[in-house]
Amino acid sequence: MIKEFNQSIETLTQSLVSIFEEDPAYTAIVSTTLPSREAILDLLRDIRKVLYPKHFSARDYSQKTIHYYVGSKMMQIEQTLTQQVQLALLRKCEHVDCAEVSIKILEQSQDISYTFMQKLPMIREMMTMDVQAAYDGDPAAADLDQIILSYPGVFAMMVYRIAHELHLLKVPLIPRMMSEYAHSRTGIDINPGATIGRYFFMDHGTGIVIGQTTEIGDYVKLYQGVTLGALSTRGGQTLRGKKRHPTIRDNVTIYSNVSILGGDTIIGHDSVIGGSAFITQSIPPYSKVSIKNPELHVEAGKHCPGIEDPEA
Amino acid sequence: MIKEFNQSIETLTQSLVSIFEEDPAYTAIVSTTLPSREAILDLLRDIRKVLYPKHFSARDYSQKTIHYYVGSKMMQIEQTLTQQVQLALLRKCEHVDCAEVSIKILEQSQDISYTFMQKLPMIREMMTMDVQAAYDGDPAAADLDQIILSYPGVFAMMVYRIAHELHLLKVPLIPRMMSEYAHSRTGIDINPGATIGRYFFMDHGTGIVIGQTTEIGDYVKLYQGVTLGALSTRGGQTLRGKKRHPTIRDNVTIYSNVSILGGDTIIGHDSVIGGSAFITQSIPPYSKVSIKNPELHVEAGKHCPGIEDPEA
Amino acid sequence: MIKEFNQSIETLTQSLVSIFEEDPAYTAIVSTTLPSREAILDLLRDIRKVLYPKHFSARDYSQKTIHYYVGSKMMQIEQTLTQQVQLALLRKCEHVDCAEVSIKILEQSQDISYTFMQKLPMIREMMTMDVQAAYDGDPAAADLDQIILSYPGVFAMMVYRIAHELHLLKVPLIPRMMSEYAHSRTGIDINPGATIGRYFFMDHGTGIVIGQTTEIGDYVKLYQGVTLGALSTRGGQTLRGKKRHPTIRDNVTIYSNVSILGGDTIIGHDSVIGGSAFITQSIPPYSKVSIKNPELHVEAGKHCPGIEDPEA
Repeated sequence: MIKEFNQSIETLTQSLVSIFEEDPAYTAIVSTTLPSREAILDLLRDIRKVLYPKHFSARDYSQKTIHYYVGSKMMQIEQTLTQQVQLALLRKCEHVDCAEVSIKILEQSQDISYTFMQKLPMIREMMTMDVQAAYDGDPAAADLDQIILSYPGVFAMMVYRIAHELHLLKVPLIPRMMSEYAHSRTGIDINPGATIGRYFFMDHGTGIVIGQTTEIGDYVKLYQGVTLGALSTRGGQTLRGKKRHPTIRDNVTIYSNVSILGGDTIIGHDSVIGGSAFITQSIPPYSKVSIKNPELHVEAGKHCPGIEDPEA
Repeated sequence: MIKEFNQSIETLTQSLVSIFEEDPAYTAIVSTTLPSREAILDLLRDIRKVLYPKHFSARDYSQKTIHYYVGSKMMQIEQTLTQQVQLALLRKCEHVDCAEVSIKILEQSQDISYTFMQKLPMIREMMTMDVQAAYDGDPAAADLDQIILSYPGVFAMMVYRIAHELHLLKVPLIPRMMSEYAHSRTGIDINPGATIGRYFFMDHGTGIVIGQTTEIGDYVKLYQGVTLGALSTRGGQTLRGKKRHPTIRDNVTIYSNVSILGGDTIIGHDSVIGGSAFITQSIPPYSKVSIKNPELHVEAGKHCPGIEDPEA
Repeated sequence: MIKEFNQSIETLTQSLVSIFEEDPAYTAIVSTTLPSREAILDLLRDIRKVLYPKHFSARDYSQKTIHYYVGSKMMQIEQTLTQQVQLALLRKCEHVDCAEVSIKILEQSQDISYTFMQKLPMIREMMTMDVQAAYDGDPAAADLDQIILSYPGVFAMMVYRIAHELHLLKVPLIPRMMSEYAHSRTGIDINPGATIGRYFFMDHGTGIVIGQTTEIGDYVKLYQGVTLGALSTRGGQTLRGKKRHPTIRDNVTIYSNVSILGGDTIIGHDSVIGGSAFITQSIPPYSKVSIKNPELHVEAGKHCPGIEDPEA
């Protein structure tokens, strides 16, 4: 009986391996190692420690030695990032002389990593503004530490600002692995290709979708469930690279569950979009948009006719 | 003071234990061990490594020894699954001779585990089609690896296809523990009892709910926030087992935040349902459904009357 | 080249540190240690083991020694909680004699921790009712164990009931760190300041938002995507402490994707609010609210005119 079962495992293994061998997602990979989710998450954790050492480094941080702490973490980030970028770039090396290509790819990975590191102070300054936007915009925010330690919208923005820089450096796989990790933790799905200005705040956040070709100005606030999406994706891969998602100008507030769709749709600056609106055309600046008389059908209770309720 | 406090812990412990003893959720359990969340997550991780060794086994996989790698992982999966199914089945053994029942349950668990293993090649072939559907349907998808490594809709489908097979084998507890793990990671809530055809894609995914008695055909695409739900659940447990959720035929696309409710509701094949529609009755095949003139109230800005904006 | 790069890391580190020194979120912190996310998650895990030892303590629990198990876990919870509360309270100690203040804060933390521990039996009894509400309200619920082990709405409520007690004890930072962890795992965002009665159930849950000043009675049921929110937050921090979120009376069911907004909005008892309603004014008791004729535009297919489909 045990032998019989083992044979079956053998047969099953053969079935699986033969399926792999017909799958382009398997055969296209030359390297035996792809960027690893764990390494990418470690990277994000380390970058966060470098950006906010007081808030996220409780166990290994001492205020007096902050230069050493931040400096040594930076070395580590640079190394891990170079390695992971290398794996992402090596994946589809199809040249005869792969060794020679490897050296070029190593240099390219080091350059990318170096260039990315230079962006960290800028990212930190953007984060200061995003945290302030959360404080100014949310009456439930007790103080800045609460926001830094726990607000999902701020976490998603930190990951977006990191992933976006790697996206601009044309790193494959890794930016999206980062943004999907933030999506998983926050319910906020920001494509690394989107462009987002300063002082940006997302309250609650769950269900927010910001598509790849979205452009967002400064001082914009979004609430949960907002979709900045495409009108139709029937075209599939033929739509790749085309502007499919809306443009949101400066100083716009978009309340919960609003959908704004289409690459030609522009929300003019200083506008407020009321909850649950569904918008597929441009809105002029300084507008206040609301859904007209949400028609409700209210049927009085039948169980207890004639009873006046003191609470009503 | 310390002594006093310890006494209080003792009193508190007694209060808690006496609450347990009156709670049917506590007293109904005979076994002292239930299936464990950690073991179930390990199982999902191992199954994923077996289905996509190149993408998820970076640390312990070598291409030349793939048969050994997949084969030994399979043995491990089979063992863990047998154990966890056993714990799930033993939970409420109420017989006098529990030892005798235990042997039967062990055999039953081995059978279930064996039968499940046979489904792995089929699950892998379904996944190949789901990954292709994501590529064909999403202009933002760069390549198949990106989809496999990071798309939440594809992760949720892998977990669903595994949990659904265990559901068909009438395993208690475990299928839902699996699907709720996927729900937690992706915001996509698919009941393991639902039936879903081939080449299925969910873009973005957050907020999708697919109820227990939903039936979905082949080549269907859903966007974030889609609910395939029940009209009313006032009946509670009396509704158990009844068809309460809709049927979606082949080649249907359902855009974001659509609700389709009710067990008699059928969306005919080759239909497209526009964003935010709320549907409680059947739709014929080849239909294009949209919400009629989403009425917006646009109020021009009062702060700066007369100012023409160059962007508008 | 390596030397050059190291210098650059040094320059970058200096840029970052000088940004920190101008950031009030950095300079306001006196303590070098803030409450840690890991410690808070351990705390939640331990409290869950104490509340449901059979369901969550598979590895270290034996039924015969339950008093010892629960008692020793309680000691551990009390210690960790005291430590973390102390860190949260010490954060902004601005007094000259910080040592003296430290002793006071230690005593205060011990008091808070002690008072919180006394609430555990009450929290457990509330949980029993919440679990029962899930069973009675969800036809897909197979049994109580399934609910306890896997329902996200029940997990979010456990965390809310814990965080709410700490909120009432005026503990800073920690309640929100807890509720944002639950938010991250479930997509359910309940502010620890909200008031929620007995026998409360959230089905599916993703996207639910319950704002800080919301009041909810007993026997209330919510579905996914429900927002109990503020009408406008333009006032920002000036609105702090004001009642901005609605009041939901006893026996109310609110179906998916409903928004109920505003601090003066009261949903009368024994009412049912149909899916996708958008409500900004009070509703009398015993009401049945639905959106009036969701207007759909259904366009028949053009690809295959004249074809009668047998499924329609």
